[in-house]
Amino acid sequence: MKAIIKSVKGGVTAPQGFQAAGVQAGIKKDRKDMALIVSAGPSAIAGVFTLNRVQAAPVQFCRKQLAGRKATAIIVNSGNANACTGRQGLRDAATMAHLTARALKLNPQTVFVCSTGTIGRPLPMTTIRRGIGRAAAALAPDGGADAARAIMTTDTRPKQAAVRLAIDGRMVTIGGMAKGAGMIHPQMATLLVFLTTDARVAPAALQQALTTAVNQSFNCISVDGDQSTNDTVLLMANGLAGNRPLQPAHPAWQRFGTALNDVTRQLAQMIVRDGEGATKFVTLTVKGAPNPAAARRVAQAVANSLLVKTSWFGADPNWGRVICAVGYAGVAVKPDRIDIAYNGHRVVAGGRPAGFDPGALHRILVRPEFSLEINLHLGRASTTIYTCDCSHQYVTINAAYMT
Amino acid sequence: MKAIIKSVKGGVTAPQGFQAAGVQAGIKKDRKDMALIVSAGPSAIAGVFTLNRVQAAPVQFCRKQLAGRKATAIIVNSGNANACTGRQGLRDAATMAHLTARALKLNPQTVFVCSTGTIGRPLPMTTIRRGIGRAAAALAPDGGADAARAIMTTDTRPKQAAVRLAIDGRMVTIGGMAKGAGMIHPQMATLLVFLTTDARVAPAALQQALTTAVNQSFNCISVDGDQSTNDTVLLMANGLAGNRPLQPAHPAWQRFGTALNDVTRQLAQMIVRDGEGATKFVTLTVKGAPNPAAARRVAQAVANSLLVKTSWFGADPNWGRVICAVGYAGVAVKPDRIDIAYNGHRVVAGGRPAGFDPGALHRILVRPEFSLEINLHLGRASTTIYTCDCSHQYVTINAAYMT
Repeated sequence: MKAIIKSVKGGVTAPQGFQAAGVQAGIKKDRKDMALIVSAGPSAIAGVFTLNRVQAAPVQFCRKQLAGRKATAIIVNSGNANACTGRQGLRDAATMAHLTARALKLNPQTVFVCSTGTIGRPLPMTTIRRGIGRAAAALAPDGGADAARAIMTTDTRPKQAAVRLAIDGRMVTIGGMAKGAGMIHPQMATLLVFLTTDARVAPAALQQALTTAVNQSFNCISVDGDQSTNDTVLLMANGLAGNRPLQPAHPAWQRFGTALNDVTRQLAQMIVRDGEGATKFVTLTVKGAPNPAAARRVAQAVANSLLVKTSWFGADPNWGRVICAVGYAGVAVKPDRIDIAYNGHRVVAGGRPAGFDPGALHRILVRPEFSLEINLHLGRASTTIYTCDCSHQYVTINAAYMT
Repeated sequence: MKAIIKSVKGGVTAPQGFQAAGVQAGIKKDRKDMALIVSAGPSAIAGVFTLNRVQAAPVQFCRKQLAGRKATAIIVNSGNANACTGRQGLRDAATMAHLTARALKLNPQTVFVCSTGTIGRPLPMTTIRRGIGRAAAALAPDGGADAARAIMTTDTRPKQAAVRLAIDGRMVTIGGMAKGAGMIHPQMATLLVFLTTDARVAPAALQQALTTAVNQSFNCISVDGDQSTNDTVLLMANGLAGNRPLQPAHPAWQRFGTALNDVTRQLAQMIVRDGEGATKFVTLTVKGAPNPAAARRVAQAVANSLLVKTSWFGADPNWGRVICAVGYAGVAVKPDRIDIAYNGHRVVAGGRPAGFDPGALHRILVRPEFSLEINLHLGRASTTIYTCDCSHQYVTINAAYMT
């Protein structure tokens, strides 16, 4: 059996036994605004949620549902976050699950609910009810693309990924879709991600695999440093591939994790590339940190620095702003050990200019993609995060995005 | 004796016995780029410096000089930060002090040195030498305004303030100047502030007064969340007013502190109002926090949120982004207790919309100045910080500010 993990087309409906739909309910004008994913049988489910103290009603609802460990459907609306909506919001989230269960003859305790959009407005339940009916009627084995479109907010394009691999002689597929754009940050902000697989996975192991994958993907990206009230990543595994249940002792466990990471990393990178107004995709690596937390703090300080982000937008080889952000990251760095390189060209060596030609550096920074590597020379820990620049367009989008 | 503290014209040369100059050395094209402040006799001196781990050569130099507790002059250049310049940078800072001391027949151990501008380029010492000569020749008892202009970088206007009060029957004046603009943040980023007074103040007490004043002013402002390698606040007290030495047991001690805070707060607010591309001045108060550190964390999370700042620029009453930032500040807030008010109008009550008319709120947010009050209802601690919006112009300035 070859250890090949192959990218395939599609998203949440790429694995066997998942149907999906994306429809327009009328929450937004002229755009799809509700998505539905349904599994052919009860799936194991795992979830990761925002760390924000202010959690939207659907996040609170999903956390409770997760205790049941079984899922059959996920109903999602965009255009309204159902956040800061009090008890009515919680009732509305539960009603969304009940309406979906009734439409599809499912157990309401196995229906998960997500919302994204404006904070502080009650859900338009008449519209939502209509949308659920439409979505249930539109369910299709190839409905993943429509669903991916329906969860978008300021995203400019839908985001889907899927991979296939063999486990126990069976073909296993993992698919997913995501919405991102603004407020993307390590610890996953305003992010909805739905992952599906036909692999059979032991429920506790499924949560472990998801947590690992999220830490290596959605927690490694940064667009503007904000965190949302609604971030949710859900993974359903319906077991239809017929493999022996995956858990850490299974010989293919690692490979399954790699495949899942592959999907989440693809989606995470799509999110950064589609960051609000982003014109550059930057792979930022911090090496030589005393420990992983320090590596992460330094990477985040640089990735979240507005001065660094705007200098990237201007293709300005302003490594002074980079070293400055390293200095205030809260890590006891030794300035005279710091090396900084863009695309492998060292611009700072031992905390001082390495004499690299600014013109050549500028030519790297005008590219739509480049890497930045910072070596602290203090230890062996490292981290990589994906980030983008901050452009005029970012300000335009966020000044105009009316509540 | 009346407890009156009166604002007066001028800046660092408002107090007796201080001369200053601002000249063009040639570091920048067509603009003043070197400033000099000289005291008629040895002054007591206090200083507060950046917390960035990467500290520019002049910061390291000033920290050492401070041990001598006496100052006669401060020489400043703009256009080059002398940061990340290694041993040569330290030698250049010392040379600046020596050249200034020689030109003015001062003890070089009493000369302080500051630089601001681009990071990572060696100081052009021939130009600096010329500038020191010019500044020494241009010293004048009313040279404060020229000096305030010479320390500007992306500032659009010079920043000066001065106050006068009577202590022990003597007239005491405190004056100051500042440069700010980008990278302004609690913990003082890319900030140079020079304060002078003719009050006689015991050296240890002077440091105490300065630390207090900085905490209540420059550490309470935020423009873009970055911290610089060069931040420095220096306060010289030459004692020429002839009052009895001020220290905590002196009956006028509190009043002196209030007057000093008045100058630093004026300068701090000028810095925010002149934030890069700023179009709105926002006074942000967090109340009802369990402790002062929590109040500060919440205030900083909101003030540094790019989504909040861009929504202010768009005059978008997007309180959802405010409550969202409160939620990720790292404080155990109770979402259903949070109140949020703009200019005293409650828009969120108990974590939910208070039903305030969005149109009326928009009319508040189009103003160039407004207040935002967040009450966590968890305790009695509060804090106020001054901040601004993030505009297109901010991105333009920082994308174009070539290294």
